[in-house]
Parts: sequence; structure tokens; C-alpha cells
Amino acid sequence: MRAFLIGRWQPFHKGHLEIIKKISAEVDEIIVGIGSCQKSHTLTDPFTAGERMMMITKTLENYDINYYAIPIIDIDYNAVWVSSVESLTPPFTTIYTGNSLVRELFSERNYVVKKPELYNRTDYSGTKIRKKMLEGSAWEHLVPEEVVKVIEEIDGINRIRRLSEKDYDEE
Amino acid sequence: MRAFLIGRWQPFHKGHLEIIKKISAEVDEIIVGIGSCQKSHTLTDPFTAGERMMMITKTLENYDINYYAIPIIDIDYNAVWVSSVESLTPPFTTIYTGNSLVRELFSERNYVVKKPELYNRTDYSGTKIRKKMLEGSAWEHLVPEEVVKVIEEIDGINRIRRLSEKDYDEE
Amino acid sequence: MRAFLIGRWQPFHKGHLEIIKKISAEVDEIIVGIGSCQKSHTLTDPFTAGERMMMITKTLENYDINYYAIPIIDIDYNAVWVSSVESLTPPFTTIYTGNSLVRELFSERNYVVKKPELYNRTDYSGTKIRKKMLEGSAWEHLVPEEVVKVIEEIDGINRIRRLSEKDYDEE
Amino acid sequence: MRAFLIGRWQPFHKGHLEIIKKISAEVDEIIVGIGSCQKSHTLTDPFTAGERMMMITKTLENYDINYYAIPIIDIDYNAVWVSSVESLTPPFTTIYTGNSLVRELFSERNYVVKKPELYNRTDYSGTKIRKKMLEGSAWEHLVPEEVVKVIEEIDGINRIRRLSEKDYDEE
Amino acid sequence: MRAFLIGRWQPFHKGHLEIIKKISAEVDEIIVGIGSCQKSHTLTDPFTAGERMMMITKTLENYDINYYAIPIIDIDYNAVWVSSVESLTPPFTTIYTGNSLVRELFSERNYVVKKPELYNRTDYSGTKIRKKMLEGSAWEHLVPEEVVKVIEEIDGINRIRRLSEKDYDEE
Amino acid sequence: MRAFLIGRWQPFHKGHLEIIKKISAEVDEIIVGIGSCQKSHTLTDPFTAGERMMMITKTLENYDINYYAIPIIDIDYNAVWVSSVESLTPPFTTIYTGNSLVRELFSERNYVVKKPELYNRTDYSGTKIRKKMLEGSAWEHLVPEEVVKVIEEIDGINRIRRLSEKDYDEE
Repeated sequence: MRAFLIGRWQPFHKGHLEIIKKISAEVDEIIVGIGSCQKSHTLTDPFTAGERMMMITKTLENYDINYYAIPIIDIDYNAVWVSSVESLTPPFTTIYTGNSLVRELFSERNYVVKKPELYNRTDYSGTKIRKKMLEGSAWEHLVPEEVVKVIEEIDGINRIRRLSEKDYDEE
Repeated sequence: MRAFLIGRWQPFHKGHLEIIKKISAEVDEIIVGIGSCQKSHTLTDPFTAGERMMMITKTLENYDINYYAIPIIDIDYNAVWVSSVESLTPPFTTIYTGNSLVRELFSERNYVVKKPELYNRTDYSGTKIRKKMLEGSAWEHLVPEEVVKVIEEIDGINRIRRLSEKDYDEE
Repeated sequence: MRAFLIGRWQPFHKGHLEIIKKISAEVDEIIVGIGSCQKSHTLTDPFTAGERMMMITKTLENYDINYYAIPIIDIDYNAVWVSSVESLTPPFTTIYTGNSLVRELFSERNYVVKKPELYNRTDYSGTKIRKKMLEGSAWEHLVPEEVVKVIEEIDGINRIRRLSEKDYDEE
Repeated sequence: MRAFLIGRWQPFHKGHLEIIKKISAEVDEIIVGIGSCQKSHTLTDPFTAGERMMMITKTLENYDINYYAIPIIDIDYNAVWVSSVESLTPPFTTIYTGNSLVRELFSERNYVVKKPELYNRTDYSGTKIRKKMLEGSAWEHLVPEEVVKVIEEIDGINRIRRLSEKDYDEE
Repeated sequence: MRAFLIGRWQPFHKGHLEIIKKISAEVDEIIVGIGSCQKSHTLTDPFTAGERMMMITKTLENYDINYYAIPIIDIDYNAVWVSSVESLTPPFTTIYTGNSLVRELFSERNYVVKKPELYNRTDYSGTKIRKKMLEGSAWEHLVPEEVVKVIEEIDGINRIRRLSEKDYDEE
Repeated sequence: MRAFLIGRWQPFHKGHLEIIKKISAEVDEIIVGIGSCQKSHTLTDPFTAGERMMMITKTLENYDINYYAIPIIDIDYNAVWVSSVESLTPPFTTIYTGNSLVRELFSERNYVVKKPELYNRTDYSGTKIRKKMLEGSAWEHLVPEEVVKVIEEIDGINRIRRLSEKDYDEE
């Protein structure tokens, strides 16, 4: 059985890793969708799809998990989104999601929809981690070691800080 | 004389029907544009263009009204929107709208722009009807009988409720 | 039972009308898709979606046929095309098509696919009719009377002739 | 040396003119990007790209400035935006911007990024000028004389006022 | 009076210059549309819009011509193309074109359409000039001196030659 | 060092596998771009990106190769294509390609461009393999065993045969 899990992974953190490890124990193969793949260089979505692909691949190659990591573009057309995902992925029957829109769209197409079991939400949250990156607090312990390396390779912390500078507006 | 009336019809209700009946008494043919046709599956725009097309057609076939129902896609480019509407519709000279942007765009293209006469706004409002659907209050008396049947055929109330469930966020 | 029939209807001719009459005898409602709806003003696709909509509606209102006429945009992404059609139309279970790509796409989505029974292909052919329009031969007897009126209203024959003029190229 | 300066110029005002005059003293040629070129007919972006092009060209032809004025479309894909700008402009090495996202995107592509020196921000602000236009206060002294003429030619003040009318909602 | 002239200018040659000089004698301002602005790096369309903008601007600044040079994107939707052009340009009443589609689209919108007077088509032809560039024949005398400089600055001849190399296909 | 290799992989065959094995001996990581990812269901591009992703992943997991497989959408805008690829992939410095346009676009962005060493072109060719599939000749020995399984899972041979049926045209 193949299952699909979609997220934005901005960045990929240890909570994400735990979810994937749990799901992979239940399925043969897991497809990790990299959502909003065209977004990057904002405070909410700082990393490109390629950078997030690298975070996921580098981390998961340390585990015995059968997975595909696939960028998924946002389409502002809910009724065709499932078809678009299907064209980019191997066939699957189950989707893990906590998002009500994604659940509804896949339910109407007769997929089995499950909720992923979240892991320590107090610490492992993309929003909180990006906030720490911006403020200069420690964030490295919240993500896999390989993700730290990727963010260093791309100078990601400085990108986030520069993006947060106040606009000096010539409007 | 042909006239154009655009709306989102989420859902098509008795207030809409009254507007169309009044306009159809003044014109030879009325073109009913189904706006934001690519939107669906949100709390504000729950129904697809095809579902809204069915609501309008099933209702209007009980009346002696000469009409066209035509899906109109949103184009995020105001300056070409009138041309896009023109290419999808039979030629018309008059547009009924209460929206200031639509009025301005058609006025600059020399259309006659009129305001539709609204009918009992206290009861007949898409926003209020969608709220009742969500909360489980009675809504059926506010829409034509045929619209009730369409919403039942597509299990529309459950769609709205499922879309409103709280996200269980893996971010 | 609802059925879907898609065509370009450039222009809508008597062969098309016969197909629709035959299908409508077999189904409760027929959805007439106006394909390539964004195309117009070429020798192969001279008429806009709105003009074709008018040809079909004016003709069919003389018959006791339950139909929807709906513009369908070309999407250069085969794998999502069926979903896009579904979002724009009432639900249907059967599609009539002679096109192998359309047949394959709907078959893979478990639709019943039937071939429409063509009617006198020697005379009733869009290609041949457009050629007659261009050359100045008689074409009016090949299309329903209402289509002649629409083409006159929009000065369609002159459009086709002007589009065929040799380019005087400043390249 | 060529430099790039991007703005929305809604409308082009005397503060903008001062910025361009200062930059043009430092560079051989200045490329004036007309940003969000597909936007128009809203209270924030009332003027089309063509109208803004005319404001800039008419004004600058009174000065000895080597410039290009080029419409730049918004692309909702930050990672390719610099490439898109590059394809539309002559090659340049320096960009003047006060916007943190634009600065980051060009910095990552190794451009020299400078902040334009703003001029009397209390008076010269697009937001404030559009507010005056809407309220009927004097705004003409805040923009170059040629811009006043352009706005008169296109009846721009009435456009803004009509766009601000309250919607009479048939929702 | 303002007039519009559209071309691809691949590259801008002396025949083009003559056309513009003739038209500019008849009108107050000429708007030079740079068509297919998103195309580049093919044998038919080797130069980017920015490069063509530079060819035109550098050449015309030697003449007393009031002009605007404006990139125009291809839109695969004939019925809205005129509106799209209008949004990007100052208002104009006359268009010079030898292309039958462009003529028809603007005629239907009530523009005055004129044919530009071509100049020595035997020598001055984009197709022939690109062929000479590829084959290594002399082409420099067929374009304005400034265009030679632009093509040298961007190493344009080598681009064309590299693009013509035979594919070594891994299909 | 990371290298990028792009292809359409319609289907992935043993010649492709040999290319990847050779390149992987020279680099640390290889990024396999799945080109024209939005194309499927035609005789030239029968398989979806997801199906091609599965062919590649299933095959390569039998080898000790560090790779990423990433769908790449066609963008009809050559000048921004490299940026689009960069946003979807981990950073790389070398590209292997036999296509002159791809070579030119990456060369202008200062990438190292190499030609992949092809392997037995007489037998290993996508075009020839698709022809065999259509005609019913043996093709299975030309692709990796895992690719045979994928094509069986998706009933790919029948898809190709159905797509080749003659249209029965209602035009």
C-alpha cells in the first residue's frame, strides 16, 4: 500500500520526521509531497522546493523508509487539485492530512483519509522554528542534523533575516 | 435587447430569482454569468460552476425566461476582463451590477450599467444562507425548491460542514 | 441519466443537430460542451464561444431537448482535463465522443464512453462549411436557420474572408 | 553603467522624479521598471501600465536623462522573478530598491543593491496622493505637470471616485 | 495622433527603421510594440525583449521621433489581445500592420488600420538576416550601426550558432 | 559535486540507466529531471510524471547511486527556464545534456555543460520502444525489469493502443 503525505516543510523538522517514521511503519511506500513548491523567499515560506527536497532526502536516507519526495505546485482551482497531484505521483490509496480542505477534496475522490499523529507540538512547529531563526534563538536541536547542514549550505538564516528588514518605501 | 447579470450564486437563492424575473421583464434575453467559476470547496464558495449551473437551469426552466447561463472565469487582470466576458457571451448592451469595479470596467467600454433591484436583503443573502447551512438552521425556504434538490444530490451540506472542521496542523 | 458531448461547433451545423437529437432520445439531459472556448478569429476556429453558444441555444430552443451548453477551456495538461470538465458541468455518467484522447481520458476515470452516430458526413462537416464560406459557395442550407442569423448578426463571413487575406509581412 | 529602479508609480509624483534625477547623475542609463503592470482599476492601483508609461515618458522627456521605461508583470514565483526582469530589460549591474524582498532576490543573483535616497516623504507619497484625489483635496502640485495632463486625458479622478462607491451587493 | 506598430524585431533592421521614419512623419507619437516579448533563444526568435528594446532605443535616439517602445506578451486568446495591448500602451487610434489577424482584431474594435509601406524587402528581412548570421555572411550593413553594437555586447551571433547545433539526443 | 540530467523518460530504458550509471561514477549526487512533467496520454508522451517517477525510483533503488528524481514543468519562456529548474532542485554546477537549447540556456548562466555518453542508440531509443509497444513487438528486454512492472501496473500498453485509434470525427 502507498500513502501520500503533504506538507510545506518550512523547514523539515523532527516532528515531521516522527510522523513519517510512524506512517512508514504502516505502509509499503510513502509519497512525501512538497507543497506550495513555487513559493520561497518569504518569511512564511523561506526555502525553495529544491532546498526542502534536499532537507528531506538527506534526512530520510539515514532511515530504512521507502519514500518518494515530489514537489507539488499550488493550483488555485480546488476542483482539479487532486487530479494534478495524481499526475505527479505513483498511484496511492491513502492520504494522511490534518487539513480540512485537502481531506474534503480527497474524500470526494474516494481516497482513504487519515490524520497523521502529531508529535510534541509544543516544540516541533514550523512557525515557532522560523521565529527562533529570525530572533537568533537556538533552533538547531529542533530539526534533523542534515537539515542544519542544508540551511548552512544555502545561508538560510541570513536570508530570513534580510527578508525581515523593514521596507524603505519609495511608493 | 440582451442584458448581462453576473453573480457568484453560492447558492442561487430566491432573491436572485426575483432579480432575474424583474430584469427579464425589461429585456429580450438575459445572460446569467456564473462568476468565479473556477472556485469551489471553500466556505465562501462551496459549490462548483457545474453545480451552480444546475441550480440556475433547473430553477429557470419553470419560468418563461429567455436566458443563457455561462461560467465566467476570474482573471486577475482588470483591464482585459470585459473582453474576456465578451468572448464568452452573446453580444449585449446592458449590464446589471451593484459592484463598483464591474460598473467602472463596463462603463469605460460604453455599456449601459444599471443597478439590479434587490429583494428582501434581510432574508435573501448568500452569506446568511451559507451560515445557516453550516449551523444546521433551516435554509431550504430561502432557495428555490430545485436548488434544494441539487444540494441534496451533491451532498452539499456535508461538504460545507466538513470544510469547516478545525485544521489539525502538521506545519 | 445525463450525457456529455463535446465539440468545437465551428460552426454548429445540421449534422451536429442530428447527433444531439439522437442522443437526447437516449438520455434525460445532454450537456453540450463548447470546446476550445478561448479560441476565435482564426480560419479553423473563426467564432467565439459566445457566438457558438448563441448558435446552439437559438437552434435547440426549437426542440424539446433538455440540455446545458457550457464553454470548456483547453487545458494543455491531459491528466487534469477530466477534472476540469467535471467542475464546470452537472454530474454525468456517459460521454459521447469520436476522439481517441477524450475517450481514453474519460475511460480511465470509469465513464461510459460511446461513439456518436454521425449523419451524412459528405455534406455536414465543419471544415467543408468553412471552406464554402471562404470561397463564396452556398453554405446556408448546411446549418440550422438560426445559425445563419447569428452569423449574419456578427458579420461572420466577412470576418473569415478578412482573416484569409495574405499577410503583407514587415518581419 | 546601467541601473534598474522599480516602482508602481500610482501615480508618478515629484518624489519619484527626484529619485530618478539623483540616480541618473550616478549612472549612464536608468531602467525604470513599471511594476505590477497587469494591475489597474483598483483604489491602490488605479492606472494601467500604459497610462503610467505615458506619465513617466512625458515627464522625463523634459530632462536630459538616458532611460528605458519597461512594464514588468508580477509573477507569483519569487525564485524566477529576477530572470523574468532580466529578459525584459537591457543588461544592468545595479538595482536601486527599498524593498527587502527585491533586495534579497537580486542580492542572491550577485547584483549591487542600493537604497534610493527618498525625497520629502511627508508630501510625496503615492498613498497620500491617491487619498487626496479621492477626497477632492489638491494633489496637482505633488506631481509633475505632465502627469496632471495625463490624468485629465484619461479622466482618472472620476475613475478613482467611481471605484470607491459602496457596493450594492446582490450576493 | 498616436499610432501603434507591432513587430518582433528579430533583429531590428534598416527596413524597420524606414517604416518607423515614414509613420512618424504622419503621426505625433508612435508606439513600437515588441511582440512575442517572452520569446528568445530560438533560431526564429533569438533575442530577448530587453535586447530588442535596446536595439530600438539606441537607434531611435539618433532621430527626432516621438516614440514609446513597449514589450507585448503573446496571449493565446485572440478575443482579449486588443484589450491586453490597450492596457500596456498610451491610448492610440491607428494601427499599422500587414498581418491579417492583427488587422481583423483591431478593425472589430473600431481602430483605423493601415498597412505600413515596406522598404526594399529583397534585402531587409528578418528571416534573411538571421540566415546570414548563422551562415557567417555579412549582415552588419542591413541593420543600424547601434544594432551591431548591441548584438556584439550580448555575443548574439555565437548564441545563434550554438542554438543551431545538432541535438545529440538521449531520448 | 552535483550534476543535473534532464530527459522525458517515455519510457525509462536501459540506455538511460547506462547514462546515469556512468555519470554517477563521476559525481557525488545526480539530479534526474523528469521533463515535460505535465505531459501524458499522447503517443509521444504516454506516461504521467508520477508513472515515470516510479519507473526511475524502482530501477535506481537496485543500484548504489545518490540521486534525486524531480518533475520539471515545461515553461514556454526560455529566458526564465534555468531559474525555474534551480528553484526545484538542490544546487548543482554541472549539467549533462545533448540538447542545444538546454546547453545554450545553462551556458549563459555559467554552468559546466557536458554531453552524456549515449549507449547503443540502435536499440535503446524511446521512439523505437514506443513504436514496438504500439505494434505489439517485443519491447520488454529494452527496459529495466522494474519498468516492465510499472507499465503492467498502469496497463500502459493498452493506453498507447487506445490513444492510437483513428478518430471518428464529429467536427
